[in-house]
Amino acid sequence: MRAVRTRIASRALVPGDRLPSVRGFARTMGVSPSTVVEAYARLEAEGVIRARRGSGFYVTGADLPPMALAEMGPRRERDIDPFWVSRQSLDADPSVLKPGCGWLPADWMPNAALRKGLRALGRANDALLSDYGGTRGAIELRRLLIARFADQGINATADQILLTGSGTQAIDLICRLLLRPGDAVLVDDPCYFNFHALLRAHQVRIVGTPFTPAGPDIAAFEQALIDENPRLYITNSALHNPTGASISPQIAHRVLSAAAAHGLTIVEDDIFADFEPTPSPRLAILDGLQRVIRIGSFSKTLSASVRCGYIAARADWIESLVDLQVATSFGGPSPVSTELIAGVLAGGSYRRHMDDVRQRLTHARIEVAERLAQLGIVPWIMPRGGFYLWCRLPDGLDSAVVARRCMERNVVLAPGNAFSASQSAAPFVRFNVAQMRDPRIIPILERAMSEGGTAAARG
Amino acid sequence: MRAVRTRIASRALVPGDRLPSVRGFARTMGVSPSTVVEAYARLEAEGVIRARRGSGFYVTGADLPPMALAEMGPRRERDIDPFWVSRQSLDADPSVLKPGCGWLPADWMPNAALRKGLRALGRANDALLSDYGGTRGAIELRRLLIARFADQGINATADQILLTGSGTQAIDLICRLLLRPGDAVLVDDPCYFNFHALLRAHQVRIVGTPFTPAGPDIAAFEQALIDENPRLYITNSALHNPTGASISPQIAHRVLSAAAAHGLTIVEDDIFADFEPTPSPRLAILDGLQRVIRIGSFSKTLSASVRCGYIAARADWIESLVDLQVATSFGGPSPVSTELIAGVLAGGSYRRHMDDVRQRLTHARIEVAERLAQLGIVPWIMPRGGFYLWCRLPDGLDSAVVARRCMERNVVLAPGNAFSASQSAAPFVRFNVAQMRDPRIIPILERAMSEGGTAAARG
Repeated sequence: MRAVRTRIASRALVPGDRLPSVRGFARTMGVSPSTVVEAYARLEAEGVIRARRGSGFYVTGADLPPMALAEMGPRRERDIDPFWVSRQSLDADPSVLKPGCGWLPADWMPNAALRKGLRALGRANDALLSDYGGTRGAIELRRLLIARFADQGINATADQILLTGSGTQAIDLICRLLLRPGDAVLVDDPCYFNFHALLRAHQVRIVGTPFTPAGPDIAAFEQALIDENPRLYITNSALHNPTGASISPQIAHRVLSAAAAHGLTIVEDDIFADFEPTPSPRLAILDGLQRVIRIGSFSKTLSASVRCGYIAARADWIESLVDLQVATSFGGPSPVSTELIAGVLAGGSYRRHMDDVRQRLTHARIEVAERLAQLGIVPWIMPRGGFYLWCRLPDGLDSAVVARRCMERNVVLAPGNAFSASQSAAPFVRFNVAQMRDPRIIPILERAMSEGGTAAARG
Repeated sequence: MRAVRTRIASRALVPGDRLPSVRGFARTMGVSPSTVVEAYARLEAEGVIRARRGSGFYVTGADLPPMALAEMGPRRERDIDPFWVSRQSLDADPSVLKPGCGWLPADWMPNAALRKGLRALGRANDALLSDYGGTRGAIELRRLLIARFADQGINATADQILLTGSGTQAIDLICRLLLRPGDAVLVDDPCYFNFHALLRAHQVRIVGTPFTPAGPDIAAFEQALIDENPRLYITNSALHNPTGASISPQIAHRVLSAAAAHGLTIVEDDIFADFEPTPSPRLAILDGLQRVIRIGSFSKTLSASVRCGYIAARADWIESLVDLQVATSFGGPSPVSTELIAGVLAGGSYRRHMDDVRQRLTHARIEVAERLAQLGIVPWIMPRGGFYLWCRLPDGLDSAVVARRCMERNVVLAPGNAFSASQSAAPFVRFNVAQMRDPRIIPILERAMSEGGTAAARG
């Protein structure tokens, strides 16, 4: 029954199509014909399929199930499917250990400032508490962003900033505006796994560029522009997810020059900005928000529970994005949320909090790297900041297999191929150094590795 | 310059296309050729167009601007364009009077309960304040919804409920899952104007069904299913926006029967549920969440600032929607928001608050209807609840013209054709009775009408 449903959901079978014969389908599925007869009978009872006398079963239109998103792209093993990785992290119960997740532990976050902000909100006026906000989001938070950008050398105006429901929603809105199904989109290989999920939802062609410790492999990048004519390039220039690398000034300049020559728009996801000890080059700064769209959020440094992201771009693009956000969300992020975030950012404690977090992360990075080294796990580079270590497992180990074994013991890992368009990162794992404090993690990892997690041992 | 940009944005001109000749374009635009020469020169300097020796100007690929959403559908007058109406309401400064908006005044909302909830949140644990939430949204709020549904006769389980960023986002997710560009979608004529905006963003064909005081005109509805083969029907069964009508049991039954016969999925937007004095029929209840998807939010009754919506549907559809929401928002609504909403709903004061609001609205409806009657403005029906009055202006008046005149005097109206797929509601206006308390509104409206707002007087 599930096999038939899946085919209908993925539109491999559409209303009016004939189902495989009972005998043929039984062979395909490796089950007895009577099992197929029973499954077809049940599906008929549900109205999903209908028998036509003497000519077999047909898909009805009476119960058209939706297209399942997971069926849209090339099918991957469950362990490295981006949706599965996200869900494991987001829905894990508190007892699960999550060195594979993409956020700091709750007790590293500025909770005292958040609590203070919530108490202040309790004294806010009625309109703030219960009215819709403006279409671009609270001016106070946009002004704080403008001031930050000015410090970095970007002169943006309030009509160049749009607040969104989250950083992911920011990229999603941009994709909706700029992309059509079938367009090519360039990403780093490896890149943040949810870029793959998001781009699959847009039914575009994902083109990976090999990533080096100084940014995208520029020769491959330039060639991809010629060969694939991509409409968009989505990247983290600073503290790249998953590698922690930052782009060099030379590569940044060449990326922008190539983009200009080919009419390429760039989305720079600057979500890890505040984790840098000193600023590295940014495409958005060099470009001055012409063809580079900067997006970001406060989920990694302030709160992922209070959701808000932003887009900084040319004013005419923002104007179109406002319409799109009104149509699809009726307005921007929650005014209660933006007020809370603006309050924490403007307060004196946020800067101290981030100084403290950066320092703790530096210690954690070194300590975790040492512990992993004892298992023969080696970082690809030692990042300048952030909480990721992109590491290679000892020769022959497949991280998807190791991740599956760890999951059986309540440890969520982030296996390399979840991040790789070319599926060439099987030996890699992304570790979150802030989530490695639990002493059970290393022994569980060691045991999973020792059980021989090679590709051959999978079956 | 703007004319060229608009054509590129709307993809009327694509890279490689030749621009109109200077002389021809000057004629089209009613400007001098030297103006066009200067505009082309500036666009060339910006890299948007490029001259080819002896053969004119061509659109480059170097600065491909995005498609403007407002260009996607049939162009409407600004005053009745759904985006423009939303923006006027959302971005109006506090001095603007808004009888055209779709929400209650801030001082009608349960602000004391919200303040209490915010103070309680200030004592919440770190994880709630700063972690991402689960992919389906807080179980506490889903359980409250399940209990409500059970009272109404729907047996739903927790895996049939997905919390979303807003009610509009709920519909948007469903559209992303079920619709492909070019699909036909049935809406009521008139219907909530943002359905038009949302469906335009999905590039689907909007098919309007005439709406009667008992629900959709069932003969027209059934014929539309045969003629147009729509994939989806989006409606408010109870306290329909903008008319305030509720579907009759007979029409509800026939709508569901026709939907079953044609494989039609229905989205029932139940956002005004709590405004009903006694419950009217619901498609989702009769159908038991099989082919009807129920969506709702808390924006109208609790807070539009604390954003959250929900989807209740078949568990397998919810499963696909979870993937889609992870891909496009990375998780559901803010846990801080859902905790706040669940706290207010579970508290004893919410029920009393809604009793009070319903009573005030009954008085306001009668009073506003009387005041409007003195201007010759007549309600189409007298709704059983909610805050809308869908009214016909005196003969010959075009509500778009009247709305424009009111806007000049800082009063936002909602003119009928913003709600009408067939553009047949020019004589109608949707009034929000809760937003009509300001004594300046009626005189401004009267003056706007007396200035002769007929279609002929527009030019």
